[in-house]
Amino acid sequence: MKKEFNPEQFSNLFPAPVVLVTCSDGEKDNIITIAWCGIVSSHPPTLSISIRSSRLSHSMIKESREFVVNVPSEDLFEETDARGIISGRDKDKFEFLNLKKEKSLKVKAPTLADCLISLECKVKQILPFDSHDCFIAEVVAVRIDDKLLVGNEIDFDKLKPFVLLSKKYFGTGKHLGDYGFSAKKLNEKEIKK
Amino acid sequence: MKKEFNPEQFSNLFPAPVVLVTCSDGEKDNIITIAWCGIVSSHPPTLSISIRSSRLSHSMIKESREFVVNVPSEDLFEETDARGIISGRDKDKFEFLNLKKEKSLKVKAPTLADCLISLECKVKQILPFDSHDCFIAEVVAVRIDDKLLVGNEIDFDKLKPFVLLSKKYFGTGKHLGDYGFSAKKLNEKEIKK
Repeated sequence: MKKEFNPEQFSNLFPAPVVLVTCSDGEKDNIITIAWCGIVSSHPPTLSISIRSSRLSHSMIKESREFVVNVPSEDLFEETDARGIISGRDKDKFEFLNLKKEKSLKVKAPTLADCLISLECKVKQILPFDSHDCFIAEVVAVRIDDKLLVGNEIDFDKLKPFVLLSKKYFGTGKHLGDYGFSAKKLNEKEIKK
Repeated sequence: MKKEFNPEQFSNLFPAPVVLVTCSDGEKDNIITIAWCGIVSSHPPTLSISIRSSRLSHSMIKESREFVVNVPSEDLFEETDARGIISGRDKDKFEFLNLKKEKSLKVKAPTLADCLISLECKVKQILPFDSHDCFIAEVVAVRIDDKLLVGNEIDFDKLKPFVLLSKKYFGTGKHLGDYGFSAKKLNEKEIKK
């Protein structure tokens, strides 16, 4: 039996990736924690992030039309939580949380040196909603720390990204299987028919 | 040291929620597995899904402007993988995979009885890209199976949703902490200063 709930609860009901978004107004840099980040298109490579209009990062990104999505590992989850809660209006979050930034390749917003993966993005479209604006952005550069690499392959066991589900952070769990693993089984089922 | 990679790889680099999207053209129903699902806005409750235009579900959703996001648990991950691979053009996926559907509350697309959470959606906007179209949709109804509920609270240990990361499925892992847990620690740090 299914029970009806308020639709506004929907965002708590499936896992969302936790990322750190860095941005800049040219003078000051800022960081915000975002779980509302979605994959939009592979070609051109496009993602979305949604931010409340009251946040400092919102106005910085709306003006500069650039940001960097930094993928944190489990060991940064305490700083990640804090970066979502404190405001860049009151303090410099980089200094306060003892975080290092480095130059990005194609955007003025800085990259977080502490994160092993960074996606540099340029805003293509802004969709306004009552509570949030949704920034649709093209990924113009991707960088991966060589700590994660074995040759040109990424060792995802070292990445340990995490997700937000119902206001709780969860690490990545058991490897259940690879995408497409069922194709072989389905073929066997077809043959038996 | 960070190394530059092809931006088109970005979608493999952070965890994406795995959901089952059901749709209908009024006569035939279909299911597709989607990991490209993002949270867009809390008010009005809005999410996005992206689908390649070659997929049957793409044309069904484009025409009907409705779909249901069904959140599968780990124990359905084999069927979930299969639903992303086989095409509804060749066979009825519900019958082939022995899945039960039930009536939705506010849309004509069916709800998957096998999933414990369903979000009924109405498309508000379609953003076209070369490889995919992105459907921006309002969540008009949310239903949760009472197997998941303790009173009106959801027991997320029973939900066991899963994510896609670099073409591998992963379960939800260790509970690292709750959103906002760092606020208390930060206040203590402030007081010490």
